[in-house]
Amino acid sequence: MSEVADRKRHSHLRLKRLGIDTYREHVIYMSRDCHVCRSEGFEVRSRVAVSLAGKSIVATLNVIDGGLLSNEEASLSKAAWNHLGASEGETVAVTHAPPLASDSFLRKKVYGGELAKEELAAIVAEIAGGRYDDIELAAFITSCAGDRLSLRETVDLTSAMIDTGEKLSWDAPAVADKHCIGGLPGNRTSMIVVPIVAAAGVIIPKTSSRAITSPAGTADVMETVSNVDLDIARMRRVVEQEGGCIAWGGSARLSPADDILIGVERPLDFDSEGQLVASVLSKKIAAGSTHVVLDLPVGTTAKLRSAEAAAALAARLVHVANAFGLKTAIVQTDGTQPVGRGIGPALEAHDVLAVLQGHAGAPQDLKTRAVALAARLLELVEAVPTGSGASAAEQLLASGAAWQKFQNICEAQGGMRIPGSAGYRLDIKSPRAGKVAAIHNRKLAKVAKLAGAPGAPLAGVVFHAPLGGLIERDQPLFTIHAETEGELAYAHDFVRTHEDIVQLGETT
Amino acid sequence: MSEVADRKRHSHLRLKRLGIDTYREHVIYMSRDCHVCRSEGFEVRSRVAVSLAGKSIVATLNVIDGGLLSNEEASLSKAAWNHLGASEGETVAVTHAPPLASDSFLRKKVYGGELAKEELAAIVAEIAGGRYDDIELAAFITSCAGDRLSLRETVDLTSAMIDTGEKLSWDAPAVADKHCIGGLPGNRTSMIVVPIVAAAGVIIPKTSSRAITSPAGTADVMETVSNVDLDIARMRRVVEQEGGCIAWGGSARLSPADDILIGVERPLDFDSEGQLVASVLSKKIAAGSTHVVLDLPVGTTAKLRSAEAAAALAARLVHVANAFGLKTAIVQTDGTQPVGRGIGPALEAHDVLAVLQGHAGAPQDLKTRAVALAARLLELVEAVPTGSGASAAEQLLASGAAWQKFQNICEAQGGMRIPGSAGYRLDIKSPRAGKVAAIHNRKLAKVAKLAGAPGAPLAGVVFHAPLGGLIERDQPLFTIHAETEGELAYAHDFVRTHEDIVQLGETT
Repeated sequence: MSEVADRKRHSHLRLKRLGIDTYREHVIYMSRDCHVCRSEGFEVRSRVAVSLAGKSIVATLNVIDGGLLSNEEASLSKAAWNHLGASEGETVAVTHAPPLASDSFLRKKVYGGELAKEELAAIVAEIAGGRYDDIELAAFITSCAGDRLSLRETVDLTSAMIDTGEKLSWDAPAVADKHCIGGLPGNRTSMIVVPIVAAAGVIIPKTSSRAITSPAGTADVMETVSNVDLDIARMRRVVEQEGGCIAWGGSARLSPADDILIGVERPLDFDSEGQLVASVLSKKIAAGSTHVVLDLPVGTTAKLRSAEAAAALAARLVHVANAFGLKTAIVQTDGTQPVGRGIGPALEAHDVLAVLQGHAGAPQDLKTRAVALAARLLELVEAVPTGSGASAAEQLLASGAAWQKFQNICEAQGGMRIPGSAGYRLDIKSPRAGKVAAIHNRKLAKVAKLAGAPGAPLAGVVFHAPLGGLIERDQPLFTIHAETEGELAYAHDFVRTHEDIVQLGETT
Repeated sequence: MSEVADRKRHSHLRLKRLGIDTYREHVIYMSRDCHVCRSEGFEVRSRVAVSLAGKSIVATLNVIDGGLLSNEEASLSKAAWNHLGASEGETVAVTHAPPLASDSFLRKKVYGGELAKEELAAIVAEIAGGRYDDIELAAFITSCAGDRLSLRETVDLTSAMIDTGEKLSWDAPAVADKHCIGGLPGNRTSMIVVPIVAAAGVIIPKTSSRAITSPAGTADVMETVSNVDLDIARMRRVVEQEGGCIAWGGSARLSPADDILIGVERPLDFDSEGQLVASVLSKKIAAGSTHVVLDLPVGTTAKLRSAEAAAALAARLVHVANAFGLKTAIVQTDGTQPVGRGIGPALEAHDVLAVLQGHAGAPQDLKTRAVALAARLLELVEAVPTGSGASAAEQLLASGAAWQKFQNICEAQGGMRIPGSAGYRLDIKSPRAGKVAAIHNRKLAKVAKLAGAPGAPLAGVVFHAPLGGLIERDQPLFTIHAETEGELAYAHDFVRTHEDIVQLGETT
């Protein structure tokens, strides 16, 4: 026993703040010669358990040579520091992390096996608990990519994701929601659908993601206009007051394992169909939604490249939704070109505001899509009779009721602001005259990302060349917006070597 | 032009050494407010190109808040610092890393596609060039796991791995080699086979890996006895002088992409069959070998769990070897229990030395296996007539010729030493009497790893309970060796919760 006490005492180190931000990864920094490294036999990249005042995390060890830390000190990456709520000078206990309990299940999936419900639950619980490091997360995501998750596994993954997070419930017969399966730049309909539906008196507690592989997620766009970091209590208050909200799903800790997976999917720039379904539906179900409209844009350069691919994904979504009693309506939409004009957080917000405010110059395609989705949702929850959704939604938008509701929601979330515009701009001009024949959505999105979106909220692309449009020589096809000179040049470099972003055909 | 010059000038930062060891990952540390972050729009986890005196690497950005770095300074992780050959105070240029050129090929593989030769070559070239970060490496490894690489892809992956590294050639009609497909603790035959074969006058330039998922690789064991870090020129000199060597493959930069992949396979604790074949054979072919004996141990808790699994892997190995004109002999061996007594670098070295020195107490199973493999190799290269390999090998061992050759090889590699033994030991005693019915190799290996092997060279397990052996109550089944108290306790914790490591049956 005294041996145990002795080990415990020896495992303590005093925290020194070095201010190292690793993004989300939990890293602990310790001197190579410190007594804990020596007594515990830790090496670079050991996974260790770090405890402080009853909280505990698992972190990856980086070792310090030289005098940056003394042998009695340790430091933590910003994410680890914040997660533990640490203060400089406090003492942490550092011990060997127990091996992953779900290790053999991860391996089974990597080798192509089908996981039982309890096996998926074990993986998701350890992911939500911060036990997986980035390469383990990358392995799990990759092992599920393509169609390697069965329908049954997708249901069980969804269930496990819901069970590890917060859950909301509402005192209403129907709770509405909508979701777009990304891949189409500028398709920012949620910020218009939510105020229309809420203005119709229907509860719509919308949580959105930040961008995963795109230049902007709805949470990124909404954040340029209002606060989206609502914890679950505040989200409940906003919805009780206004009938709807547009919040970032991560703050609410609905399906927290999903937020962690998304953190690795973003730099990897891919996700898996089964995880996409689990991600989308776990958030809806945890938010207490009962009816959801799903927008599936189809186009050769969108995420869904064919009607068949969309139908397969739709079948999976409906199957999993049904398993949880969630009613769904699938809407396949045109995914051949960007929606609206802006691509990037602030630029998309300007489009949304123009539609809500009824500006003459507002992008009509964005308006038309939003009205159609709102109409479908109003009919799905039976707020209006079948066939009258479109006129109801149109009227709520035209009357200014949706705009007023949007402003009220923003106020309830913490106040409304109008985003500015970027300091660096560059027109990409057409090398010749022609008629726009095709647009490469993914490459256009990549230009916006290289220009800094979504991290730089004012960055992105303004698109001027819709399909079928007639273009003169030297007329701008699109304009790159950046917050820095370096990013403008970086995006421009990419455009110079990718001439197929906008393809022109004959003018006749 | 002046704009470009301006950007270049603005991208420079002065190196300050912080001494952070991240293992192999290239990380650059920059102040959040530094002029390069601001002008280039870098964010945490941006992938950036870092150049110094004509050398360039791609690194992941970690951002520093607070005064650890000034706005004119940057620091590098130890691996990045060494790779660039940097000195404190030198100036590095930091710019946006160009996007991965093989990005779409990686994605194609993740989604289950088959890659063309050029696509695999593009991936391997960027891996060898340090362009892939750890999560991208993890995704590539996982995307190839199980049987997701076709035979043709495996040939092309092997070819790409050879092409990105150094190559050796020898002025000899036959160049011998051997390899064991891991998974069996203590199976350290190479250190006996090489001196036997070299003593017979056959060229055998053996490169070995460090442990990937096991408690010790041959390079780790050999390193407790001699130097294994031979660059290609030194390796050539040793082989020209002694006919053989036992070197770490990583120093020789044969198939460097493989070394990078292994760096991520180790913490992931799995590899893929196709990558295993490419890894093994690319190293042999790059080393100039013409004939190779492959040892495939089969047992329910070894890497290869059935004769069928071994046959499938053997077929893949032979197919790929044939594509490069490499002659192979496959030997399926017993993989139901550990070989010899020690598991861990120094403990295995003691077994090897006992066999070479002809000690009466030397483990006979290790000796028998090594002689059989050497015999097969001598016959394969036609150094002896078919059927006389065993007696030739036996004689070279019994006469002391192999022991003398081993000492000569060690001297040529930099000198020979006898490893010590660990300071912390714990007997794991049998809870009852019985006859050993089964041994869980993977769990036994895990005990050795938790005790510190291979990072702590003296750590591991000494095994006392061979299959069929009669055990009394309280008789030790195995002894844990550790260099630190913490690791001893950590390994013991695992043993306490896994009672099936040694399974006892009735004594009759």
